[in-house]
Amino acid sequence: MGGKPAPVAVGLLGFGTVGSGVVRLIAEHAEELEAELGQRLVVKRILVRDPAKERPVKVPPEVLTTEPGVILDDPEIRIVVEVIGGLEPARTLVLEALRRGKHVVTANKDLMALYGADLLAVAREHGADLYFEASVGGGIPIIRTLMDGFASDRITRIYGIINGTTNYILTQMSRQGRSFDEALREAQALGYAEADPSSDVDGLDAARKMVILATLGFHMPIALDDVAVQGIRGLDRKDIAYADEFGYTVKLLGTAIRDDGSVEIAVQPTLVPKDHPLANVSDAFNAVFVHGEAVGETMFYGQGAGSLPTATAVMSDVVAVIKNMLLGVSGKRLGRPLRPKRLKTPAEIVGRYFFRLTVDDAPGVLAHIARTLSESEVSIERIVQVPDPAARTADILIITHAATQAALDAALTRLRDLSALRAIHAVFRVL
Amino acid sequence: MGGKPAPVAVGLLGFGTVGSGVVRLIAEHAEELEAELGQRLVVKRILVRDPAKERPVKVPPEVLTTEPGVILDDPEIRIVVEVIGGLEPARTLVLEALRRGKHVVTANKDLMALYGADLLAVAREHGADLYFEASVGGGIPIIRTLMDGFASDRITRIYGIINGTTNYILTQMSRQGRSFDEALREAQALGYAEADPSSDVDGLDAARKMVILATLGFHMPIALDDVAVQGIRGLDRKDIAYADEFGYTVKLLGTAIRDDGSVEIAVQPTLVPKDHPLANVSDAFNAVFVHGEAVGETMFYGQGAGSLPTATAVMSDVVAVIKNMLLGVSGKRLGRPLRPKRLKTPAEIVGRYFFRLTVDDAPGVLAHIARTLSESEVSIERIVQVPDPAARTADILIITHAATQAALDAALTRLRDLSALRAIHAVFRVL
Repeated sequence: MGGKPAPVAVGLLGFGTVGSGVVRLIAEHAEELEAELGQRLVVKRILVRDPAKERPVKVPPEVLTTEPGVILDDPEIRIVVEVIGGLEPARTLVLEALRRGKHVVTANKDLMALYGADLLAVAREHGADLYFEASVGGGIPIIRTLMDGFASDRITRIYGIINGTTNYILTQMSRQGRSFDEALREAQALGYAEADPSSDVDGLDAARKMVILATLGFHMPIALDDVAVQGIRGLDRKDIAYADEFGYTVKLLGTAIRDDGSVEIAVQPTLVPKDHPLANVSDAFNAVFVHGEAVGETMFYGQGAGSLPTATAVMSDVVAVIKNMLLGVSGKRLGRPLRPKRLKTPAEIVGRYFFRLTVDDAPGVLAHIARTLSESEVSIERIVQVPDPAARTADILIITHAATQAALDAALTRLRDLSALRAIHAVFRVL
Repeated sequence: MGGKPAPVAVGLLGFGTVGSGVVRLIAEHAEELEAELGQRLVVKRILVRDPAKERPVKVPPEVLTTEPGVILDDPEIRIVVEVIGGLEPARTLVLEALRRGKHVVTANKDLMALYGADLLAVAREHGADLYFEASVGGGIPIIRTLMDGFASDRITRIYGIINGTTNYILTQMSRQGRSFDEALREAQALGYAEADPSSDVDGLDAARKMVILATLGFHMPIALDDVAVQGIRGLDRKDIAYADEFGYTVKLLGTAIRDDGSVEIAVQPTLVPKDHPLANVSDAFNAVFVHGEAVGETMFYGQGAGSLPTATAVMSDVVAVIKNMLLGVSGKRLGRPLRPKRLKTPAEIVGRYFFRLTVDDAPGVLAHIARTLSESEVSIERIVQVPDPAARTADILIITHAATQAALDAALTRLRDLSALRAIHAVFRVL
């Protein structure tokens, strides 16, 4: 049969956690990959900032380069794997690779959430593939599932736990009684949270992932501004304890809901009933529920981050891209065009809410609050008063029946005028 | 631009539960499908036994035919969807369709478990696609996930609940305290179980699905004979109650485990710890765990049967097949060739076990049993004696530490010789 086909050369942009995993998988699963593709895969070049840095995975020194051009200008490198993360220089390098007709596999949620549509258009224009399974949910093949698995269905809800850092923090607060600051420091010590944890704890990371999931699920051009974002920074463990007493676990959920043509997308702390599967998704695991009109409720669970799980997602894309090359269909991924989006107004967003007020412990305050809510058309499912005699205050905990966001906002505005009110602490959704 | 492209004509073999769902989806999601494919889809013909039968979904009478040739001989029908189920005439019709170069989408686990490899070879030979997402797990895209999502990984374990009928029966027994017979009759009344429930309750349906999953996951030619099958027929609710006291829920699990090159595949009643996600998978839902060396633990959950969920899986395949046609890559699905399989011997299969003995309530019996197990190298994690004074017998419940299947078999053989033994009731695995 003559010689073996030449190996497929991959250029890697970035050699951090995910990049190391990709190099390991290509080496350790070489047999599987060759069986799958009939060709060997080699990492020909890796773009790094500092070639001298100690790394957990060894490669020959000549593989490392600090010059993007060494990868972009190499005609043998047909596939570029971008695992730098963040917007720049990732965006410029991906654009440049696509313009040269190279196929790109990226794990970069920031890039795909902000510039996904543009990049996909550039890819199409140049006959190149752009795959991004690893951008959401680590090793969970959720992108593929939304694009292919439910291709004939009408997705109505996507919701779940898609940020491992905050889920680790919430798990520690809930199971070990840690404060937010303690749990955050632990997460940082373990490498689950970065030195600047803002993007995770303020919900931005989850919001970007929701942009990607909702765009694919609803076939609408969802933008980051369309996502109502509330993080968990400074979350009081008191609220976790109260939620626990009510039978709930607090989770940071991303939710995307479609009713007819209108959508709402949010990231917010949410009370999850303890017997709901999401309540038991702990530490750095992710879980995404997808509800389709026809398929009903489905759920996908796995490690949401980490070197090898995320590298598995990257490599599933690399395999798909190489198969497309072998079949001569690169850059021809078929799918639905996006259609116009319509965001729900606050008067159309309906949910159940939990919140906690601290008030002066005086007669009539509870009744006044109840009346205010009722007059604002927020109906109460449960209201509990917990006095703090030392401070002469009381915590008032409320879970509402289904109410519109507009009604809730109006009610909270009126409550803020209440002279007995000391603070409104936590306004969470209830699943 | 000119006129619209001609619609893609589909021929349907069978018009039962899943077939009706397919017709509904094609009608009700016509807009989605046209957006996805740029072409309309029509069900041109449906093969039925009795055209006069009342059906939940209406189609023009001229669409129905009792003649397979009307579909097989029609050159306009490029895609045949087989939803008859069972081996014949499904096998003959699918073979005939493939030989004429028609693409086939099937929901038929019996067919794929027994003749999958042959049929895939015929398909390849004739440049036709053969897709079978709906054969396992209803609406859960598990076939796709194993084939594409984890293409670079080395799958080491696949296990889960893949038969809705038995899961409904076990849920009713466990939550409502029903006997096996009561729960079975309920399942039959609700349409969850067939008049002859053997294939479900004896574990054969689950075994066939495990053949499909293990073949895809391990890339080995797994046969039905390779699966150790134990069903739930006649399961005593006593054992469910005892398991419950020990902190477990009884589930019928399919398991496929690979250690190095050797595999074990089984379907058997299994004690699942109550805090394990599978313990909460109830009624007709399915859930499959897939463990890969790199990706770690993942889980996929959804409705394992039903008209529309299963039709969603069928239609995801129809969409994939049409995309292949549009791209000119029909019959060219790339993937790993199968490699030789090696089944573990009973001396290599290691597990924890639960079983219940009824013995004469006489002094020394418990000690004798404990000694017998110990001499057979089955070490006991927990042993509980529950006397039944009226019958002068006792139930002895045992949970073992990890032991080989060979050691357990030897121990049970020795226990059967014990003069005080009345019965060995249930030998279940412990997850």
